[in-house]
Amino acid sequence: MDATTRIEQALAAAIDHVVPGCPPRLAEAVRHSVFPGGARVRPRLCLAVAAACGSKDYAAADAVAAAIELLHCASLVHDDLPCFDDSPLRRGVPSVHRAFGEPLAVLAGDALIILAFEHLARSIPSERLGPLLLTVSGSVGMPFGITAGQAWECEPTVSVEEYHRTKTGSLFAAATAAGAQVAGADADAWRVVGDRIGEAYQVADDLRDVAASAQEVGKPVGRDALLNRPSAAGELGIDGAIERLRGLMKGAIDAIPPCPGAEQLAEVLMAESRHIMPKNLAQRAA
Amino acid sequence: MDATTRIEQALAAAIDHVVPGCPPRLAEAVRHSVFPGGARVRPRLCLAVAAACGSKDYAAADAVAAAIELLHCASLVHDDLPCFDDSPLRRGVPSVHRAFGEPLAVLAGDALIILAFEHLARSIPSERLGPLLLTVSGSVGMPFGITAGQAWECEPTVSVEEYHRTKTGSLFAAATAAGAQVAGADADAWRVVGDRIGEAYQVADDLRDVAASAQEVGKPVGRDALLNRPSAAGELGIDGAIERLRGLMKGAIDAIPPCPGAEQLAEVLMAESRHIMPKNLAQRAA
Repeated sequence: MDATTRIEQALAAAIDHVVPGCPPRLAEAVRHSVFPGGARVRPRLCLAVAAACGSKDYAAADAVAAAIELLHCASLVHDDLPCFDDSPLRRGVPSVHRAFGEPLAVLAGDALIILAFEHLARSIPSERLGPLLLTVSGSVGMPFGITAGQAWECEPTVSVEEYHRTKTGSLFAAATAAGAQVAGADADAWRVVGDRIGEAYQVADDLRDVAASAQEVGKPVGRDALLNRPSAAGELGIDGAIERLRGLMKGAIDAIPPCPGAEQLAEVLMAESRHIMPKNLAQRAA
Repeated sequence: MDATTRIEQALAAAIDHVVPGCPPRLAEAVRHSVFPGGARVRPRLCLAVAAACGSKDYAAADAVAAAIELLHCASLVHDDLPCFDDSPLRRGVPSVHRAFGEPLAVLAGDALIILAFEHLARSIPSERLGPLLLTVSGSVGMPFGITAGQAWECEPTVSVEEYHRTKTGSLFAAATAAGAQVAGADADAWRVVGDRIGEAYQVADDLRDVAASAQEVGKPVGRDALLNRPSAAGELGIDGAIERLRGLMKGAIDAIPPCPGAEQLAEVLMAESRHIMPKNLAQRAA
């Protein structure tokens, strides 16, 4: 079964497990938050690292990948709220608060966070559960997870590196570290790979915000400048940001620790680095 | 050390662990969400059950009690948001969104949920972590936890029993079930004790909302009728609700499973049932 099918099935299974008996509109809002998905970059990365490290426990890898994606979806739902981005669209359809109202958007985000941890507890063998849970919780909580990253927007000053490392990089680092942990490999050695890929995605996102169309992105563009948020494209210019993105992906590949599937993983990441460049900038970047 | 001191110290330790390096205002908002606390009813109940079941692992009991209180605090912060109760006050001081703004209130709630699970993963021995985590996550998530309970407010119809059991009872049931689990006792046998106490507290809260002063409660009163929420006092009248409260607490005591500290626990619960009655109704209830 390919990675995408495994991820969609794992997400559906996690949600199906908790839906019977649930308030129907909350269940609908939760499904709307998760399906249809975006590129599923973090869970794909997690599965790719687990495979590169030789993991044969597919159920555990799928559960970790799903938990990471559920947390990512939760963060999108809350980031779209009126008090943050007030985004009317997400992945080309109405954002959760536009489709279901603000109360259900707050609750769907909460429910997704809880479900991620519950799903890990249900799926991971006890001897691996604690360390995996700490990897995942650290990537979303305080002080260096995505919640903290989002909270840097509420501070009078913030370094763009700190902001991006926490808001975006942390969950990518967890995807690689947890993928390695599932296989019994050293989590810390894999963190830097995810860190760099996460930073590359953040740069790609910044570029898309200044250079792509809303149709391509599936949400409004030009928001970073409007909301005065730190942006690599704003800071380095478009060409500088493209160069940075390529350097980061090369750095991620160079950092792959020795493992049975290192070469294949490098190829996956090279394909990914072409894929994430906004379409109308791809030629400029070549 | 008495239960209250243990709980305050466990909460402080959980938060202190994740604050260094955190955005300062998020850290402040999280502390504001948790300190000074309310009655800490759920964690006290959890510790009382762990003790009644003969638990000697004080660190694990403290961690579970703290996790349950962190989740309770998270739910208060989100319930106070403008899209729900829009409450200006909580525990006699400004609610988190009034003190720190809505973005930090959303994020503080998220961070507290994550911290609860992280704290369990850090504190509970691996052989007990999975089952304890499922008890706790089930009490806050879908389909029957407090998040689902809150979401029943967004449905066109809801039974008052289902609403209260999920919105309030579930976390009380987790407090007793998890307290028993820490001691290696059967979680399910203890659930009904927490269920009934939770329902009693909900009735007491409804009574307070119609019959107490804002000063006594530390938040605005008369909100249930204003917001057209299910209320035992509205449904049964004040005398009927008082009778129901007393019946529920008696039912909780009758349901205590055989355990080394059953008698002492019964005394604790009897004292509690006097304590939770709104002051100006205590005489009417006697």
